[in-house]
Amino acid sequence: MPRPACEGLGAIVPEFKNLRSPEHEVLLEGVRRGQFRAIARLITLIENGATDSADFLRELFPLTGRCFTIGVTGAPGVGKSTLVDGLAGHYRQLGLKVGIIAVDPTSPFTGGAILGDRIRMRSRSLDPGTFIRSMATRGHLGGLSRATGEVLDVLDAAGFDIVLVETVGVGQDEVEVARAAHATLVLLVPGMGDDVQALKAGIMEIGDVFVINKADREGAARTEAELRALLSMSRRSDGWRPGMVRTVASEGAGLQECARAIEEYRSFLESSPQRSDRAQQVQRDRLLEMARARITEDLLGGAVCAGLVEALAAKVAARETDPYSAVEELIARYRLGAVGG
Amino acid sequence: MPRPACEGLGAIVPEFKNLRSPEHEVLLEGVRRGQFRAIARLITLIENGATDSADFLRELFPLTGRCFTIGVTGAPGVGKSTLVDGLAGHYRQLGLKVGIIAVDPTSPFTGGAILGDRIRMRSRSLDPGTFIRSMATRGHLGGLSRATGEVLDVLDAAGFDIVLVETVGVGQDEVEVARAAHATLVLLVPGMGDDVQALKAGIMEIGDVFVINKADREGAARTEAELRALLSMSRRSDGWRPGMVRTVASEGAGLQECARAIEEYRSFLESSPQRSDRAQQVQRDRLLEMARARITEDLLGGAVCAGLVEALAAKVAARETDPYSAVEELIARYRLGAVGG
Repeated sequence: MPRPACEGLGAIVPEFKNLRSPEHEVLLEGVRRGQFRAIARLITLIENGATDSADFLRELFPLTGRCFTIGVTGAPGVGKSTLVDGLAGHYRQLGLKVGIIAVDPTSPFTGGAILGDRIRMRSRSLDPGTFIRSMATRGHLGGLSRATGEVLDVLDAAGFDIVLVETVGVGQDEVEVARAAHATLVLLVPGMGDDVQALKAGIMEIGDVFVINKADREGAARTEAELRALLSMSRRSDGWRPGMVRTVASEGAGLQECARAIEEYRSFLESSPQRSDRAQQVQRDRLLEMARARITEDLLGGAVCAGLVEALAAKVAARETDPYSAVEELIARYRLGAVGG
Repeated sequence: MPRPACEGLGAIVPEFKNLRSPEHEVLLEGVRRGQFRAIARLITLIENGATDSADFLRELFPLTGRCFTIGVTGAPGVGKSTLVDGLAGHYRQLGLKVGIIAVDPTSPFTGGAILGDRIRMRSRSLDPGTFIRSMATRGHLGGLSRATGEVLDVLDAAGFDIVLVETVGVGQDEVEVARAAHATLVLLVPGMGDDVQALKAGIMEIGDVFVINKADREGAARTEAELRALLSMSRRSDGWRPGMVRTVASEGAGLQECARAIEEYRSFLESSPQRSDRAQQVQRDRLLEMARARITEDLLGGAVCAGLVEALAAKVAARETDPYSAVEELIARYRLGAVGG
């Protein structure tokens, strides 16, 4: 067996160090009490990939498990922000503590656009009982759903009853983000073209409740009929028949019905015999995502194999090796690194 | 150090086995000769994650390096398929061998929609000199850009001069797929709303050439002005100033200009002092993606730690541990697996 190239490793099962600095305690206590400033600070640590954020999250985890999370997805322009705003208002009126996370998988650039959305979402942002946060990837491959899961844990531990997770865009990332929520709302609008058919299909499987928004537009009945036809062709393994509601979110119309459809699904989830299967599946997806993010960080960050990825990439670029052999070497060395520790 | 839980490993640096069965040789030779049937079969092996596809790819890699790949991305409805069709026709007229890959990161469901697109793309699919293939993820996290990279290698080795990679949707996945190409075209159409602004921002950084398609619509000049303003706010580290062209792809208008803008970027790339940096960066991203896909397969496929992910997920779901500790254990055991082998 060749001598491992990556050395200088510490113990690979990191001891949970009791770092409890005074600042650490203050931040933790602030989150536990639901203070927005403390929550926002911890989320920033998570977004920046701070290594000690896992320590906080470990300590907060026992407080989690009560919050109900709702993912809201759909093509651009269907009115996700407006619906999220309306639903948040509905839950606030019931006296619940509500969080909103707007997840943007595309780019740092998009900060501005999200801000625009948030400005439109005026009613909520002025309500001190609603915590609103935008998140974007910082170029980390696959890091978004990991970070979203962590932020959901933070808000859960901080005592939020409901968290709405709005995704921008319609790719695989959004699907994963939406799947991390307890319930997933898929929004459509009447009369979109062929390409939207493709989008609809892509997010079809993940919808627990379908919302036809802007339902005062022409074609709402036809869109609903098409949707029912599409849904009737597939059957979910858990036996749930997705709800369907029409809304005009900008006028508040249909919000009660939408909340009721979510509630029905929540009741179904809680009484479902597959309940623990689903919980396990959510955790499995999450562990994989976290492991993938961690391994990428290890490979790039130099903690394990400093420079190895770059060296191999240079060899492939110079055509001294092929990528298929290079990746075998990379993984082998990553795993052998443990021996050197 | 605890006894590793994952045993039964073989050597972790797999020997390159000389499996050369007659079928293996026939398939390889078919790909080398550019036979569409052989190419299609190898792509299917790649899509299905067949373990021996890496053997083929290793053998084909020395033949790669001549093909120029063009990623085409943009929001739904901007006319990507039509532009790709038009550009393919343009390159065919120059006597070049052209491949088209339509990449759909959303779902198996979407096969139908893609097929619809392909049916519209009639002129190309009847041309025996154009190879057309749709690809979708099979539920593998992050597997899409890996598979796309492998298919590009296959087409490169098979002697294609140009491969156009069209992405459906606008998420992080598409960005990664587009980045794997030599040149990336970003399509816009005049007069889209606020949400499109967000999309534009997301894909802004990756565009080497911007195409305002459907430029006969009202607002083309304004869209171009907005785009120029947005682009002027950022400067690329490689010094390239992205090209901008207007097209009406459905009527073939502007295709020459578009091809010329791509050619300019290609010349820039080939004369750029950062040329090798960029090649290395592409390979680095690719290696990481391949490593992530491999590790996920190892974790789920049972080759390394059969059942470990499920067991940990069950423990987290039962709240016997937290996900942050579970992922540490998962990674530690994955790496320790090497010791047990």
